[in-house]
Order: sequence, then C-alpha cells, then structure tokens
Amino acid sequence: MTRPHIDINCDMGESFGAWEKGEDAAMLKVVSSANVACGFHAGDPNIMAQTFAMARERNVAVGAHPGFPDLMGFGRRHIPYSAGEVERLVAYQIGAAQAISQTIGHPITHVKAHGALGNLAQQDETMARAICNAIKAVDASLICLAIALGQQHRIAEEMGLTVVSEIFADRAYTDEGFLVPRGQKGAVIHDPDVAAWRVVEMVSEGAIITISGKRIETPMGSVCVHGDAAGAVAIAQAVRSGLEKQGYAIANFIH
Amino acid sequence: MTRPHIDINCDMGESFGAWEKGEDAAMLKVVSSANVACGFHAGDPNIMAQTFAMARERNVAVGAHPGFPDLMGFGRRHIPYSAGEVERLVAYQIGAAQAISQTIGHPITHVKAHGALGNLAQQDETMARAICNAIKAVDASLICLAIALGQQHRIAEEMGLTVVSEIFADRAYTDEGFLVPRGQKGAVIHDPDVAAWRVVEMVSEGAIITISGKRIETPMGSVCVHGDAAGAVAIAQAVRSGLEKQGYAIANFIH
Amino acid sequence: MTRPHIDINCDMGESFGAWEKGEDAAMLKVVSSANVACGFHAGDPNIMAQTFAMARERNVAVGAHPGFPDLMGFGRRHIPYSAGEVERLVAYQIGAAQAISQTIGHPITHVKAHGALGNLAQQDETMARAICNAIKAVDASLICLAIALGQQHRIAEEMGLTVVSEIFADRAYTDEGFLVPRGQKGAVIHDPDVAAWRVVEMVSEGAIITISGKRIETPMGSVCVHGDAAGAVAIAQAVRSGLEKQGYAIANFIH
Amino acid sequence: MTRPHIDINCDMGESFGAWEKGEDAAMLKVVSSANVACGFHAGDPNIMAQTFAMARERNVAVGAHPGFPDLMGFGRRHIPYSAGEVERLVAYQIGAAQAISQTIGHPITHVKAHGALGNLAQQDETMARAICNAIKAVDASLICLAIALGQQHRIAEEMGLTVVSEIFADRAYTDEGFLVPRGQKGAVIHDPDVAAWRVVEMVSEGAIITISGKRIETPMGSVCVHGDAAGAVAIAQAVRSGLEKQGYAIANFIH
Repeated sequence: MTRPHIDINCDMGESFGAWEKGEDAAMLKVVSSANVACGFHAGDPNIMAQTFAMARERNVAVGAHPGFPDLMGFGRRHIPYSAGEVERLVAYQIGAAQAISQTIGHPITHVKAHGALGNLAQQDETMARAICNAIKAVDASLICLAIALGQQHRIAEEMGLTVVSEIFADRAYTDEGFLVPRGQKGAVIHDPDVAAWRVVEMVSEGAIITISGKRIETPMGSVCVHGDAAGAVAIAQAVRSGLEKQGYAIANFIH
Repeated sequence: MTRPHIDINCDMGESFGAWEKGEDAAMLKVVSSANVACGFHAGDPNIMAQTFAMARERNVAVGAHPGFPDLMGFGRRHIPYSAGEVERLVAYQIGAAQAISQTIGHPITHVKAHGALGNLAQQDETMARAICNAIKAVDASLICLAIALGQQHRIAEEMGLTVVSEIFADRAYTDEGFLVPRGQKGAVIHDPDVAAWRVVEMVSEGAIITISGKRIETPMGSVCVHGDAAGAVAIAQAVRSGLEKQGYAIANFIH
Repeated sequence: MTRPHIDINCDMGESFGAWEKGEDAAMLKVVSSANVACGFHAGDPNIMAQTFAMARERNVAVGAHPGFPDLMGFGRRHIPYSAGEVERLVAYQIGAAQAISQTIGHPITHVKAHGALGNLAQQDETMARAICNAIKAVDASLICLAIALGQQHRIAEEMGLTVVSEIFADRAYTDEGFLVPRGQKGAVIHDPDVAAWRVVEMVSEGAIITISGKRIETPMGSVCVHGDAAGAVAIAQAVRSGLEKQGYAIANFIH
Repeated sequence: MTRPHIDINCDMGESFGAWEKGEDAAMLKVVSSANVACGFHAGDPNIMAQTFAMARERNVAVGAHPGFPDLMGFGRRHIPYSAGEVERLVAYQIGAAQAISQTIGHPITHVKAHGALGNLAQQDETMARAICNAIKAVDASLICLAIALGQQHRIAEEMGLTVVSEIFADRAYTDEGFLVPRGQKGAVIHDPDVAAWRVVEMVSEGAIITISGKRIETPMGSVCVHGDAAGAVAIAQAVRSGLEKQGYAIANFIH
C-alpha cells in the first residue's frame, strides 16, 4: 500500500441465543477488523458463525474476543482466576473461534481480550503473559491486538508475538496513559466530530493525547470503536471519514 | 508393526470443577486412546488440560469427545438441535480441545461423539453428516471414531475422512447390530472374563457377535471400554490382557 | 365489579444480564397481569426484581413464568425431562419468583408455563399434572394460568387449584382448538384491528373462533398478548381498547 | 429439654447432575441440621429434593445454603457482586429451596451462606446485611446460621432475626477469632479425637479457643462439621460422641 493505513476494530457477535446486541451489520460497513465474542461472556456457536459469515461478506478481518465465563455479567466483572486458569480459558475460546471461523471459510487472524479480561491484559503483567501464552500455544501466527501503552503490548513483543496496539476513539486518557474511568466527567466522548478529530490527531502524531493535552508517543495500528452504545455507528463513520480525509487507508493489520 | 494391533479407547476427563468422575489415572495404564470431554457435558478447561497432560505422560493418544451442552444431564439427553446447530456445537468443541491439547503439547488426533450425540451419530444420517462436516471443516486429518455398523462410519467414509470403527467390550448387541438397550436383561456385561472373551472373539472373527450368537462382519479398529462404572478398570484390564494373549498389540490407530 | 371484566396477560422480564428484550415499560401500561421469567430460559435475579418493581408501580399482578433450563434456546426447545424432573424444575422457579417478588413487596399470585413447557402443559396430561403438583406443593393459593381447552386446565381443576384459561390475541386456532403452527399461513395475526375484533368476539361469545369460523365454547379469564414481536404494543393497545369499548373492565383475575 | 443441647450442622446436597460429592447418607446419621446447596454453586432441583427427602427420613432439620453462581468454582471464588445483587441472589436461592423442600414435605428452617459468600457474611458488614435483608424479606422466621464472632451475627441480631452462631470442629482460630487460613500449618484438624476434645472444651466454656490457647467468649448454638473431606464422617462421629458423653443432647436449634 502506498498510502499510510490504519485499522479500525470493533467488538461484534455479542448477541446470545434469542437476545440481540449491537449493530453488527452497520458496523461491518465501517470497520476493517471484528473481534468476535466466543461464547463465554457473549456469543454462542450460531451467533459466532453468523458473525464470521457477515464479516467474510464485507471482507472484514476477524479475531477471537475471549472473556471471563460470565454471561450474566457480560464479562465485565473481574473473576479471580489464576494465571494458569486464564491461559486455559483463553486458549479454549481461541480454539473454538478458530474452529467455527473455519466452518465459515474465514479463519480468525487476531485475538483481543474482552472487558475485565482486557483490563487485566493492560494492567497486570502476569495475566498479560497468561493470555499471550495461550495465543502462542494455540497459533503463534495470530496477531495480538493490545491496548496501547499496556502490559500486554510489552509482553507480547517480548514473547515474539506480532502485536498491534489500539487507541480508543471515544474514551479520554489520563496523563499516565490509562483510560479515564467511566464514572468520571469527560471519560466518554459522545460527539462524533470530536471523536474523529481526536483520532486523526493521535494517529497523525503517533501519540495518545491525554485529558490535559499531554502527548504520549506509542505505536498504534488500530482504532477501537464501540458497537453497542447509542450513536456508535455515527462515531465509527466519523472516525473512518476523518482518517480517510487525511489520506489514511482503512485496512486491517494482516495486510 | 509385525503383530496385528488394535486400539482400546475410553472416555475421560469427565470431571467438572470440584467434582471428580472416573478413574482416569488407572484407565490410562490400560487404554491406547482417550476421548476427552470438551466442557459441554463434562470437563472444563482445567480438567481438559490435566487429562491431556496425564495422557501425554502415558503416551496415550487423545481425541475430542463433544456432547450436547447439558451439564446437568451429562450429555445423555437428546436435545433437539438442528443439523446446522449440531455442526457448530461439534466444531466449537473440537476447536477448544485442539487448543487446550496444544497448550499441553499433546494435540488431539481423533473425534468421538458422546452420549446422546453419539447415539445420533450412529442412527441418524443427517446428524452423522453434521458431525463429519464439523470434523472436515476444522481439521480433515482428524480421525473419526465411530460406532461399528452405524451411520457415521458410512458417512465419514463417503466424505473422505479417515474413520475407525469401535466395538463395545461390555455391551450386548441385537441381531440388527444395535446395542441392547440398557434396561434389558443381559444388556451390560459385568464379568471381566466374559467381556474379554467376547472381545477376543469379535476381533479375531472381524465380526460383531449378537445376543443370539449371530455374526455381523464389520471393520473394527478399536474396542471401547467404559471408565465410570463399577469394576471398569478390571474389565479394561481383562480385555487388554485377553487381546495380548492372543497376539494382538494394543496401539492407538494413529500409528 | 359491576361491569364484566377480563384480564390481559403478557410475558415479561425476558431480558438477561446486559441483553434487553421486549417493551416491558410500554406493555405494563396495557396489561393487567405479567408473567415473569424465572432465570431458566430468561431473566435473572436482577431483571426479575426490576420487573416486579415496575409491575408494582403500575398495579399489574405478577406471576411466575417457569421454563426449561435453556438460555441459548429461550425455553423454546423441548428437552426430554421426566415428569418428576419437570415438577422440581417448576417448583424451584416458582419459589425463586416468590422470594424475589417478596423482596419487592409485590408477591406473585399466579403461575404460567413458558414456551416448550407451556406447550407440554397444554398437550401432555402427565406434564400438566407435574406442573400442577409443583404449584400445589409450593403454594396452593397460586392461580394456574392455562391455555384454554388444554390439558392443564382440566388437570388443575381436578386437583382443586384455581385455574384461569387464556386465549391468544394474535394466533389463529385449528378446528380442534389448537394453535395453528407458526409456519403456516394465517397462523399469526399482525393487524391490531383484526386481533382486537377477534378477541372481542371470542370474549363476548365465550368461545374460541377457529380458522374455519367454528366456535368452541370454553371458560376464558384472560387474553394473552405478546411483548416481544414487532407491533406488539399496538396489538395489545387495540385489544384493550376494543374490550373496553364493549364495556369490559380490564382487571387481573385475582380481584 | 432438660439436658443442655447443641446442634451439629453439615453442608449437604453438593452433588450435581451425574457427579456425586460428600457422604450425605452417613453424615445424616450424625448431624442434626443440614445446609442444602441451592443450585448456584452445587446441587440441582433433583439433588435438592433427594437431600431434603433423606433428611426428613432421619429427622434432620434443613436449611438453604446459598452461594455465588459459580459451578466451576464450587462457590469458593469471590465474585464481585454489589450488595443489591447479593441480596437478590440469596433471596432467589432461599425461595427455590423453600419450594423444593415443600414438595418433599420437609420445609427449610434456616439459612447459611456458602463458601466465598459465607466468608463475606463473616467479614463484610454490607454483605452480611444484604444476606440478612434477603432472609427477612423472604421469610423472617428463618433462622440465620452465622459464623461465631462474625459480622452476620451482629447484623442479624440488630435486624431482629433469630440467629444461631456456629463454631468449626476441624479448624483452628486466630487470636482475633478468625479461621487460620487453610494454607497455614495447623489450620485444619484431622484427628477426630482432637477435634472432639476441642469442641467439648469450646462448648463447655462458651468460648472459642484460639491457636495460642486464648479464650474468646461467644454465644454458640451449633458445631459445623464438614462432609466432603477425607475422614469427615469419623470426625463428625467423634464430635457427636464427645458432646454426648459430656451430657449434651444433639438437637437442631429449631427445638
């Protein structure tokens, strides 16, 4: 590719049985990568297959999106598993996602941890290593999609995995490079134009912009947009459009 | 191998969380293949990993043992899923077993359906095909372990999968080649010597011996012993010993 | 009450964890009774509590709505439990609903079986008896809400339970008094005015009107409207409005 | 009763589906109260019914034994639920246990929190209150069985519930009145005679004896014995026998 390019990723396949969640069909027109829930916090084998099939139609790359086994809590609660247990929970889900995606002819190419497990991957070196161990054992060619500036990025590199860092389109950052907790003022960005402007700035500068305006340089290969909030599609479209206007091609990181 | 050889297989890894089931450690000294539960009817990621590790120590081949998602019913209840749903349930579990077995360095080499799903595979052509579709899509090199004379044997061959047929050491057969239902008199063989003698006869003759003494010729590459009944280990040992005395080597079918 | 009155009931509380389903808030303005899912096919302790609280605000009577333990299948699959198992599954869910409704200060007053379990209650005498046994053992003062002309109505009466029969606002009936299966032409009524007209006719005549125009007399104390289909609220409002115009008061059957 | 009396309680009904756990039949000959798992960490409606029926035969009082919804972790993991969620989880399980016990004709008379939830009840005032709120809302006449010296005893009294405190037969206490953590030396008492002697001393003195020999006075109405460890029955028998030799009658606290 001659133009600079960047990926846009979104969590998908978070329906379960008769319950629907998210606007996957609309988001698949905007993003270049989809993180597909694996049945532990959301998704089931049928939903997974449908999501992989829809992504294949739109030529969107797919990844496993493992979470804690907690349907009632949607994987947002931190359940105290040991590192070994986390490694096995993640391996199990990656394998399941590989298998279902192969029945659809659109195999997964990356892994991104969900919810409370994703927070652990960012903040807890031991858990980040457990998740990376699972990826490496199951298929070392799978790309590790990690939160920029977090533990998992460092550990994955150290372990020789291919790692891509993501920034968030709709979340503010502290001066330490963490997400401003959801409860706090300004934590979530609701205005599509503001989100798009911020993303373009961060991608252009190769740095996270914190809530105080500070820049923290970091590699970044993907922008995470959310699929299940009000106005999610509008924010995603604005981000994509903003990046394209600045000359970026939107393309998944396996290219 | 110069001597004729045959496999002995047993279901394993059917504990769950804090609940233990079966005598896996003892059975692993007797059998050459282990069918490992995948978390839907029994087993969990930790139990799976332990079972794969124990099997690796004893050089016992391992396979995925997918079942209906029914922990409370141990996969013995027939839940009315469509063929497509069955294909995805089976693919999901095979993938999960592949992944966990890879974290242990002892990858699965076969697939055998459990309980009510195994009965469907034997009797229902559509469901047998759904299971075989899952195997083929996930990894066409996985061996399909099927009940002798059942639908799945025929379908798997037709689809070009490698298939091995199994006979049961402790169950009587009807003249149609089906298992005598458990409730009926003589359905289950409890005497280790009788079980051993029957297995030797059937393997030597290349035929199932029915309850009336009739012979039904069939390919057979494995003998199934059960691991969770009273006296299970004694029956398994008698069967192994009986076969060895007749000059058979006990070896898994991947050799 | 001086005017004749009739109940309108609707299934509610069928969300689960982070997944929402149905338009409970809107339906609670229309109906006089709510059948609340008990956590086995839908609902969880939090959703149950919220639903009971919303119903209390609107002065809508509440009941337990037990189903098969099958979140992935939303209780619509027939799982082969024995009668004894069904009795215990139902008792468990009634007890849970009693308890949660008491924490809200709005105790349940009826029981209605859900989905595949509801179909069994209508068609299978043994299962109808199992469900009635559960009601009787847990609290014999709970009203049994049963499908008109079905087995459960007869069994409940025979056992001395208070039973109320319901007709469906949006479903066609065969000449045998069964529901026309969903796949068939004309099975589901989508036009609010047609649904309302039919309900008024049936209630006035005290008879089910079949697809051929035949009348089958039956006691009827409630009209079931659905909450999770497109246009559900419009149908429910039309039915209520139609009945009120004919002089009926809408009131739950515990009055 | 003319003789002084004390209760002996044990957790029971901790099997699940096809998996068995504990020696309930043997323990029911020794204890006067059984805490019955309610399906969230162990137990299912069938196991619950069987356990209530066995207890009725032996005239052993029964109680609900609610835990965190975590079959894989047997309720031993602390899952971060809010106080409101805990109240509803506990209410749900109490109601379910009431209902199943009523189908057996042997209604529950007490509530004791299990595992990680029991630890919270002992140590966390807010969670102790949530559990007591659930008991009070569902049936204020249910006795709260609480760990001696813990938060729940104090809160239950404050709320006007009937509360009985229990001491552990096989666990050492710190000088602060907490259990010595299982990992530490001397934490668990394996010798039946030592356990029996300690219990007799503590009951006679009306005080917990700590690992350093210190006495901490506390009301105590019950002795907890464990049912699922090696030698559990022998310890329970020794404790009962020791108490009886000292003139105590073993009787549940509802007498």
